[in-house]
Amino acid sequence: MNAEIIAVGSELLLGQIVNTNAKFISEQLAEIGVNVFFHTVVGDNNSRLEEAISIAEKRADLIIFTGGLGPTKDDLTKETIAKKLNRNLVLDNEALVSIKEYFSKTNRVMTANNEKQALVLESSTVLKNEYGMAPGMFLKTENNYYMLLPGPPFEMEPMFRKYGCAALLKSLKKTETIHSRVLRFFGIGEAQLETEIMHIIDAQSNPTVAPLASDGEVTLRLTAKHDSKAIANEMLDKVEEEIKNIVGEYFYGYDDTSLMEVGFRLLKEQGVTISSAESLTGGLFQSQITAFSGASSVLSGGVVCYQDEIKQNILSVKETTLQKYTAVSEECALELADNVRKMFSTDIGISFTGVAGPGPANGKPAGTVWIGISRANQKTKAFQLNLAGGRNANRNRAVKYGWFYLIKELSK
Amino acid sequence: MNAEIIAVGSELLLGQIVNTNAKFISEQLAEIGVNVFFHTVVGDNNSRLEEAISIAEKRADLIIFTGGLGPTKDDLTKETIAKKLNRNLVLDNEALVSIKEYFSKTNRVMTANNEKQALVLESSTVLKNEYGMAPGMFLKTENNYYMLLPGPPFEMEPMFRKYGCAALLKSLKKTETIHSRVLRFFGIGEAQLETEIMHIIDAQSNPTVAPLASDGEVTLRLTAKHDSKAIANEMLDKVEEEIKNIVGEYFYGYDDTSLMEVGFRLLKEQGVTISSAESLTGGLFQSQITAFSGASSVLSGGVVCYQDEIKQNILSVKETTLQKYTAVSEECALELADNVRKMFSTDIGISFTGVAGPGPANGKPAGTVWIGISRANQKTKAFQLNLAGGRNANRNRAVKYGWFYLIKELSK
Repeated sequence: MNAEIIAVGSELLLGQIVNTNAKFISEQLAEIGVNVFFHTVVGDNNSRLEEAISIAEKRADLIIFTGGLGPTKDDLTKETIAKKLNRNLVLDNEALVSIKEYFSKTNRVMTANNEKQALVLESSTVLKNEYGMAPGMFLKTENNYYMLLPGPPFEMEPMFRKYGCAALLKSLKKTETIHSRVLRFFGIGEAQLETEIMHIIDAQSNPTVAPLASDGEVTLRLTAKHDSKAIANEMLDKVEEEIKNIVGEYFYGYDDTSLMEVGFRLLKEQGVTISSAESLTGGLFQSQITAFSGASSVLSGGVVCYQDEIKQNILSVKETTLQKYTAVSEECALELADNVRKMFSTDIGISFTGVAGPGPANGKPAGTVWIGISRANQKTKAFQLNLAGGRNANRNRAVKYGWFYLIKELSK
Repeated sequence: MNAEIIAVGSELLLGQIVNTNAKFISEQLAEIGVNVFFHTVVGDNNSRLEEAISIAEKRADLIIFTGGLGPTKDDLTKETIAKKLNRNLVLDNEALVSIKEYFSKTNRVMTANNEKQALVLESSTVLKNEYGMAPGMFLKTENNYYMLLPGPPFEMEPMFRKYGCAALLKSLKKTETIHSRVLRFFGIGEAQLETEIMHIIDAQSNPTVAPLASDGEVTLRLTAKHDSKAIANEMLDKVEEEIKNIVGEYFYGYDDTSLMEVGFRLLKEQGVTISSAESLTGGLFQSQITAFSGASSVLSGGVVCYQDEIKQNILSVKETTLQKYTAVSEECALELADNVRKMFSTDIGISFTGVAGPGPANGKPAGTVWIGISRANQKTKAFQLNLAGGRNANRNRAVKYGWFYLIKELSK
């Protein structure tokens, strides 16, 4: 069985909102093993919606609609489908009652056009809307399944989780399900990663291995099909191990996590405090730590030392260091990391110094970055980066590398 | 002219990522008066992509593709289009050079599959990729325009803004009859702004006045229709003046600018240097300054003082202040702003202290924030905020208010 998701709403075509519904439903369908082959977005327009339905009926078994179930006259999803399938719209009393309750609860006057929301496609399974008024619908014709869901995510998501998914599974009578796991890598390009594990990717049909690159990170989605979750997980474990044997050094986490999340968790778990000295990153690293609730147990503070005088006067970088090696140097990164750690009396000091760009500076090309990591009673380390992005891509990438090196440091 | 946006990528159909590209491009096309009638998402699959192209060719004049231009073998957008349009893929030397530079610059091994990215559709206009490797393309056939853009937003967005949009306007030969101007406001709610200028909104048909709220800011889009740009601008000037007479105190800039951009420009123009002491914002303000090229002429540096001991030991906030008023107080904000200014010997010192949330702290509810602004030979000011968002909404909003007060200070 394969599916198409049709989102109805001119606001999507005007770029006023993002189609997060398609993402959510696709994720949910993947979990129960339904392949999604197309997403379509169409405006609040009768004939174009009809056209989209005709196309979907030919190429998809299951068509899921979101949006256009509301009370106003530009909400025309179910009306268009009713016409197309030649079905009546009938009043659903339960829906009408809950709509009336909704208004009395919120002390608002119920205008007549709201009753329209209680109309459902004849002989369809009605999906209860527990967070709004317009009910959803599920029906089957000779050739297709149709599911109608409301547009607002806070209404649609719980409806699909609780009622839509169940209705699908029932009519699918599926046993085999999909189990997937995402491995996250940093510091290696997509092409290189794919080249190094190509033999695994090519050899695999179940589980499958799919690489995806985004913003300096590469993820591998491992997907196993099996009716037993336990066996599926064993299959995933096996492939994961093979992959890690080759590119394990770049691995940092699973699924939806992020470098900063993994790094912050490690700091917290190990009860390690940190401070940072930031030049080109200008405070970005610290601001990411403080994004987490409970940051106070980890971050003491830090200094943004954008000017050399600040590096020298406030963070006590030796004048000779700046003169001999410039601020964009291993020596400067090491001193900054050591000195900020001592100044803020933390367990770890991390430093970022470099050339964000666009132009070169200190005789170094844009993208040259040094990151220092200092720990009490340990040799201070510094890492050099040569980044090739724009000014802010470089600054963000530098911070990601900072987290990555910190994760490696804390994972020893 | 109407357009369809086709995003290519199985990761979209698996629900791994949201199709933000369609939103961005739709927004941009709306700006230049091109109607978008459909969004389509299709996976990394030859035949289904071909099918989607055939459908789009029938219903859209302009087809914009995003994704599938990368080095791996599941990247097949241009190959599929080449086959469909019966055009050759030819090597673009400029692109190949910049790909090779990218690798040499980052000291990474260039695997052979990366050269594939330098292949472009014969006799197409090549769109330079300044933030990645895969170039974009624009071409015209007898019946349709085709634009190919990379998938990663940080590559696609600047490419479209700088090259894609220009290529479109050129081939559209649009005699700009729609002239619009966006006025940006901060510190006033959409409902209040709309109420205060409702009589203007209602009275206007040309220019039209359309309010839009986003993330604590409100914008008014003024749109005038006239063949003469000069006359259209006069019409816009007139309405703008009427509006500013009522809500001018909240106005801060035009079109795509931002609070940080206006603030940075004012600092730069006036040759004023700044330093900041950040508690709840954890360096966010400073990192926004350093996002601008040339930040060194403005930002000296600053301290992230997340812990009270840091406020006291490094920024010399009086112990009595912290004991009597806590860190979340006007008194603390004033001292922080004064002391960071002196410590970094800058013209302005700005401070952020408060409760980000989720829970209360120092006996103050989440969202309580004090911002201090200190200037030599002037009375130091402090502003209180009572924000109602989540932890990070509050931190970002606080920084926006910091910029807003700074702009007002520098605009006197």
